[in-house]
Amino acid sequence: MAMIGSYCTVCKKRESFFYRKYSGQQLCKKCLSESIETKVRTTITKYHMLKFNDKLAIAVSGGKDSLSLLHILAKLQKYRPKTTLVAVTIDEGIKGYRDEALDIAIKNCKTLDVPLHIVSFKKLFGLTLDELITKVRANKQTELTSCAYCGVLRRRAINIAARAVGATKIATGHTLDDEAQTVLMNILRGDIARLSKEKPATNQVHPMLIRKIKPFCEIPENESALYAYVKKITFQDTPCPYASEALRNDMRAMLNHMEEKHAGTKFTISRTIEKLRPAIEQITIKEDFKICKECGEPSAQNYCKTCEMLHQIL
Amino acid sequence: MAMIGSYCTVCKKRESFFYRKYSGQQLCKKCLSESIETKVRTTITKYHMLKFNDKLAIAVSGGKDSLSLLHILAKLQKYRPKTTLVAVTIDEGIKGYRDEALDIAIKNCKTLDVPLHIVSFKKLFGLTLDELITKVRANKQTELTSCAYCGVLRRRAINIAARAVGATKIATGHTLDDEAQTVLMNILRGDIARLSKEKPATNQVHPMLIRKIKPFCEIPENESALYAYVKKITFQDTPCPYASEALRNDMRAMLNHMEEKHAGTKFTISRTIEKLRPAIEQITIKEDFKICKECGEPSAQNYCKTCEMLHQIL
Repeated sequence: MAMIGSYCTVCKKRESFFYRKYSGQQLCKKCLSESIETKVRTTITKYHMLKFNDKLAIAVSGGKDSLSLLHILAKLQKYRPKTTLVAVTIDEGIKGYRDEALDIAIKNCKTLDVPLHIVSFKKLFGLTLDELITKVRANKQTELTSCAYCGVLRRRAINIAARAVGATKIATGHTLDDEAQTVLMNILRGDIARLSKEKPATNQVHPMLIRKIKPFCEIPENESALYAYVKKITFQDTPCPYASEALRNDMRAMLNHMEEKHAGTKFTISRTIEKLRPAIEQITIKEDFKICKECGEPSAQNYCKTCEMLHQIL
Repeated sequence: MAMIGSYCTVCKKRESFFYRKYSGQQLCKKCLSESIETKVRTTITKYHMLKFNDKLAIAVSGGKDSLSLLHILAKLQKYRPKTTLVAVTIDEGIKGYRDEALDIAIKNCKTLDVPLHIVSFKKLFGLTLDELITKVRANKQTELTSCAYCGVLRRRAINIAARAVGATKIATGHTLDDEAQTVLMNILRGDIARLSKEKPATNQVHPMLIRKIKPFCEIPENESALYAYVKKITFQDTPCPYASEALRNDMRAMLNHMEEKHAGTKFTISRTIEKLRPAIEQITIKEDFKICKECGEPSAQNYCKTCEMLHQIL
């Protein structure tokens, strides 16, 4: 909590707005947002996220994280004039939720003068997420969560959208919180392959799979929200009506509780896994990509997960 | 929960007593305890815990885990006639708690005809845990928990006790639950060195440090308790009055919650870390042991943690 009447420990001039517990700093609005922008810049350098002439597709959902990211990357372009930006938004087809998000994405991109490319589940896969979930529930194929279905299709859609606009990299708004949650989820599920590959800047594993970067991987989620607030960014803050990742919710609650007690816990988890990652990569079997016999997209199996899922449902 | 009137899925004769959710088995008392004994036997083989002529010091606290372990190891001696057993118990000096535990340890060892060697903090370090904690609290040196102080001294005391009886290995009653909690604690604390070395059978790092084995590392804590109950083993079930490991308590609660929702989670964590361990060991800097200039025990620094701690307090 910022102490009323206390001053920013960075500029020593303006009133404190936010107490950053893990660093012990009191920060004014200006120094807070500048420190977040600087952190994103150093994260991009640290993980070699961008080459000087990359065309970067920013996956914009309309939520606070992806929009704060969009605004910061647009601002950082002055340091990287050869990097071109384009936003991609996936219209999963969720009535009463996605329409608002699309409007918000369009407005933000217009303000920042970043071109926006929208791709829909309906057009790509022949059905909206609403239709898909209705079918799944009717067939009682409920061993997977809605997020599991949506995740597979959305990852595919983002990759197709990024390729369509000629992007060489995809940036997503995953925060430090997402990273720490994912690490624990992968350990609890015993998913060593994902522990290995879900890193701040993914490897190039197939020419048709655009590499992904996470410039917010060291930004706590609450600071991403504060950035949007300070910069008066309009974002969608209603949660997805299908949000159902029970395990992630458990990990989120536990980590927030731990962070409250021991400030810096999320950073520690992230640093720990980054130290271990090279060793984990060594023992992980490299996936050998082929072309899916159905859709022609890269796949570890003869048929890709997307086609397998759609076959099961349709 | 065992279903009333249902039969054991192993022997198909006796009534079920326990539903083992992670395997889907209904088990009668006899088949449950036999399956635990078999698991301990296979764990010892799997991790090469014992050589044929080891002298094994079992660290007996008087709680359910160490006493169930003592009873099972005594029983398994028929398969390993050349392994000799001895129990070691540490008297930390905790009024109204440890005395009862000592009595219980003595009685169990007498019944099983296993010699018992008792070592006290008072004799080894010049003060009881009660005296130590009183001093720490008076000096307001409260950055460490009571468990942290006790842990360092107890590990030292067990090693000295084991050496005194000529043991070649030390067995502790750490269960699957302890293992899974420790893995998560080490990740949340970023302690890669401990992730590397706290394994089912520790490496020989110095001739004066007796290797430790954890034959219960694949036995869930509730099954260790059920074994004690079925076998009518007398154990101490009041918790230590100093028990204060907040992080462990958080991990325990979270893991029990996850296990309830997804049976087998604790096993998954244990299997995951065992798969990763060789890779983690590769990137861990090997500690170079010297002899502590104060007490002559092995130490990674010029002065060992035990002496450092005692100096700080006294």
